[in-house]
Amino acid sequence: MSTEYIPSELMDRESRSNRYYRNAVERHWDPGQIELERDVENLLEYIEGAQDYDAQAWDRTLNGIAKFGAGEDAVTEDLAPLATVLEDIDDQLFLTTQLYEEAKHADFFDRYWREVIWTVEDELGWDRSNPRADKWFNDPYVELFDRNKKAQYRLLDEDTPETRAKAYCHYHLTVEGILAQTGYYGMQTSYGGEFEELPYLPGLVEGFTKIRSDEGRHVGFGMNQLKKLIQEGVDPKLIEDTVNELLPLVQGITEDDRFQPDADAERVGLEDGELAAYAVDKHTDRMRQITDTAADLPDVDELVQLESDD
Amino acid sequence: MSTEYIPSELMDRESRSNRYYRNAVERHWDPGQIELERDVENLLEYIEGAQDYDAQAWDRTLNGIAKFGAGEDAVTEDLAPLATVLEDIDDQLFLTTQLYEEAKHADFFDRYWREVIWTVEDELGWDRSNPRADKWFNDPYVELFDRNKKAQYRLLDEDTPETRAKAYCHYHLTVEGILAQTGYYGMQTSYGGEFEELPYLPGLVEGFTKIRSDEGRHVGFGMNQLKKLIQEGVDPKLIEDTVNELLPLVQGITEDDRFQPDADAERVGLEDGELAAYAVDKHTDRMRQITDTAADLPDVDELVQLESDD
Repeated sequence: MSTEYIPSELMDRESRSNRYYRNAVERHWDPGQIELERDVENLLEYIEGAQDYDAQAWDRTLNGIAKFGAGEDAVTEDLAPLATVLEDIDDQLFLTTQLYEEAKHADFFDRYWREVIWTVEDELGWDRSNPRADKWFNDPYVELFDRNKKAQYRLLDEDTPETRAKAYCHYHLTVEGILAQTGYYGMQTSYGGEFEELPYLPGLVEGFTKIRSDEGRHVGFGMNQLKKLIQEGVDPKLIEDTVNELLPLVQGITEDDRFQPDADAERVGLEDGELAAYAVDKHTDRMRQITDTAADLPDVDELVQLESDD
Repeated sequence: MSTEYIPSELMDRESRSNRYYRNAVERHWDPGQIELERDVENLLEYIEGAQDYDAQAWDRTLNGIAKFGAGEDAVTEDLAPLATVLEDIDDQLFLTTQLYEEAKHADFFDRYWREVIWTVEDELGWDRSNPRADKWFNDPYVELFDRNKKAQYRLLDEDTPETRAKAYCHYHLTVEGILAQTGYYGMQTSYGGEFEELPYLPGLVEGFTKIRSDEGRHVGFGMNQLKKLIQEGVDPKLIEDTVNELLPLVQGITEDDRFQPDADAERVGLEDGELAAYAVDKHTDRMRQITDTAADLPDVDELVQLESDD
């Protein structure tokens, strides 16, 4: 890292990073503006109308939200090392939008916990749950975020094409591209009103939709950076291997069934296999786009659309 | 810097950092939305109607814009080390908004150069000026940004209350609090339509107003961080000394008169002394608020208002 002041190059308005940056500014949204009252009403109605509703059932709902909330906090912090090493002005511009968006995602989950979860618990006379209780974070979760953090902070000591590629693999391809996108897809589907056995939570779904759209753009940026690194000589196998090493941890998180009923028949929502299939499909497609020099990456309008609609 | 994953504490919604973060989200603006057509028209009309308008007069207008443009690019990059060391979640949230806003400021100046400066030059059949030409950046400018960058990157090697205090002194109190606020004030006044001898540039003034409002919030954050550091034992003299050492550089930038006419009588706009007085007033007031434990910092609504209105 040079610590000497040299005026930066002019921006390249046609570069992908610059266009992604502009797209983020134009699609700005405020997590404080999402209506959450219906979620409180629907949850109360659902809980009061349910048979045998117990603490385990409530924990099942909280589990996913707690994991996302703490995850977004972590990534807000973990992206900063990359911002200190990137020297291209357009990459820097984009990265500031990503940092800011991760902060807004953390804000959304924090707000959801305070305004929905605690309000429901207050209404029912239950104790307020702690979104940072250890029980939400199983070993694969801690291990994945630990490895992500190390891969990001390693850039400060050793900034090479390979350490950058690994940083993008951990953060953009795996944490965002596989874990978060899979989780969001699962949550959106579960609480989107499709399943009679689950409450309909329109505020949660609206937040997820906005967040997934932002993250579609982030994943696209990471893919484009990896494609450039491969063109500069990074072995595609490094990318494949890094992601493959992390996949069992992702699976250990999305299939954390400590809060599920023991009997399979009582489980509701998506089957485990459906999520895994969704994740593998997405990832295979992305790897092809990154490694095939002839393949084009989707344009930004498609990235933000794709990830929220399919 | 710990590279181990530990879930962060819950946000403190009442903390200053969190409130400043929220204020930034709620006051979001897009530099691409500011109308610039009138600036092109007014500049063309002004240049075509002026007597003895020459290259030096044009350089005088470009000088300030070039310095701001390159300065905003620099600070976008230089803030990232601070983001890697701050561990408080609310401070982190705020810092992502500051990084993002610096990127938008850089975007505004880049856009202004392309859409106003180059359009005017094209219309007049002149060569297009280079916003990164060496001539804009005099020695004190390069030296100030060099020292700022070193103070920021030093955090990565030595993160102590003192190095943090110095980082805030360079960036928040001096580059933003004195240099930028003074320059913006000067430019807003010069091109706000008050002086008959200068063109009225409403797009430039609107951009400056939005940027100064953002930077009022940034300076307030830096002041609050310094106030906390003093309470934790940092010597206020360190802050005073650090800023004092940088003041001659700031003066060397705001009073860069290489593009001014030789005869004092031909100079237009604010006098040099007015800018210096403005800067010293502001700084003295801020130092009192930081070092006096009984003094309150202005609230965020006042910070963003103050800086754009007075």
